[in-house]
Amino acid sequence: MRGYAYYNGRFSKKEDVRIPLSDRVIYFADAVYDVAIGKGGRVYLGDLHIERLLSGAGALGYNHGYTHDFIAEIMSECIRRSGAESYSVYMQMSRNAPIRSHGASVCDGVNLLITAEPYELPLKNGEIKLISKEDKRYRYCNIKTVNLLPAVIASTEAEAAGCDETVLLRDGYVTECAHSNISILKDGTLYTHPLDEKILPGITRRELLSACRELGIKYREVPFSLSELLLADEVIVTSTTKLIRRALELDGIKLGGRDPATFLRLSEKMFDSFASFLGGE
Amino acid sequence: MRGYAYYNGRFSKKEDVRIPLSDRVIYFADAVYDVAIGKGGRVYLGDLHIERLLSGAGALGYNHGYTHDFIAEIMSECIRRSGAESYSVYMQMSRNAPIRSHGASVCDGVNLLITAEPYELPLKNGEIKLISKEDKRYRYCNIKTVNLLPAVIASTEAEAAGCDETVLLRDGYVTECAHSNISILKDGTLYTHPLDEKILPGITRRELLSACRELGIKYREVPFSLSELLLADEVIVTSTTKLIRRALELDGIKLGGRDPATFLRLSEKMFDSFASFLGGE
Repeated sequence: MRGYAYYNGRFSKKEDVRIPLSDRVIYFADAVYDVAIGKGGRVYLGDLHIERLLSGAGALGYNHGYTHDFIAEIMSECIRRSGAESYSVYMQMSRNAPIRSHGASVCDGVNLLITAEPYELPLKNGEIKLISKEDKRYRYCNIKTVNLLPAVIASTEAEAAGCDETVLLRDGYVTECAHSNISILKDGTLYTHPLDEKILPGITRRELLSACRELGIKYREVPFSLSELLLADEVIVTSTTKLIRRALELDGIKLGGRDPATFLRLSEKMFDSFASFLGGE
Repeated sequence: MRGYAYYNGRFSKKEDVRIPLSDRVIYFADAVYDVAIGKGGRVYLGDLHIERLLSGAGALGYNHGYTHDFIAEIMSECIRRSGAESYSVYMQMSRNAPIRSHGASVCDGVNLLITAEPYELPLKNGEIKLISKEDKRYRYCNIKTVNLLPAVIASTEAEAAGCDETVLLRDGYVTECAHSNISILKDGTLYTHPLDEKILPGITRRELLSACRELGIKYREVPFSLSELLLADEVIVTSTTKLIRRALELDGIKLGGRDPATFLRLSEKMFDSFASFLGGE
């Protein structure tokens, strides 16, 4: 476990972090988190990731005094101390309480965990395989919390099938993947699930829609079915740590590959923004 | 934070337990747990609680070598060291991994946490107030995991309303409460949600059905609606830490109170079993 960390005022090697039982992440998964990547001291869209962390903490009623700038500073310090050229950063805010009791009235503050560790930045034109599975997750998916066991189960099944991600289906519609958003291209238009309590408001999803606008590619935020996914021209999976990839197989069935030009335009655009941001241009 | 604890081979005061980031309970809530209560060295239905813990670990594919007897022994030792006359015990098994990655293929074992601390045993004839709320939880409620944020949210809303528990409604039907099972009495028959992925297989729920059988009270394991709950003769809430209580209010509306005799027979029976078990008879 490489990397450097900050936990409640104390910097240490990541492997030396120790969490007490008063941190309600342990008993109740009462924590929001976020992940970002970067290099050379920069964090790609770091402000948006910090905003999402604070917005989730606000939605859950966390009573804390942490500012955006403070978190950004600590993150920079962890990156600096990690010595990594390229890295991922992880931030987590959780409630704290002296006793185990479900209701939050026993809480006496929050805990802040931030880590930075070496990470190899994603490469262009990644191609992946998917499996599908029923989406049995809770309906707070719009808040990025550590209640991730369903994502763990889905990801473990993908691994067992020799695949990279799991498409989740709720009531016959594709919501997202276990730890990515998913979109399809059909007849030149991009379709992706609308923002609601069933999906995470992905920052890379947002970048994808922004790329569509800049490139004049139409997009619609509407749910699509498994059949529509199977008939799509291209299937696009986006996430913070992998940026944008295309899926070419689902449950062993060949997928997409019918509009590589549009996929490549989007991929180029997104990797350009990424490189430009991290290059400081 | 009083009490004594065991974590991965080491006994300590509960307040001194420290969890490393390799314990996936922190990043992924990848943990099952259970809670029981007892006194004088005994744990009420402790075997059933340990079985449920191990059964959940099995359902999630945890690869561990812990036996029922080992967990029971550690629990006894924590109780002994806590010095408490009556107590609650908490046990948690989680997966461990050297890096943060959703899929379980990175896991290199499990962690075992057991604690015991003073707890005042429940009193007979507790009367409580409820609120209601949509059940937005995941559909793995039959496994007792720490993915409890929805229960935290529901419990916090109950506290804010000056109430004791929150009735959860999925598709118009009552599933259970935030951290209890719920049943109703109507015309002498007890109704409770069937065992499926929408509710926890409560050990006290099981005791309630057992009490029905012994007392010759009919019961049916079928879903009931909010209206049926409002029209019920009695509304019964069961949990490990409070045993059996009746609810007399929901969202400010008067509830039940129309068949106190049957409720009291059930309550007496359950408290008798409890006292008899802990008294060692």
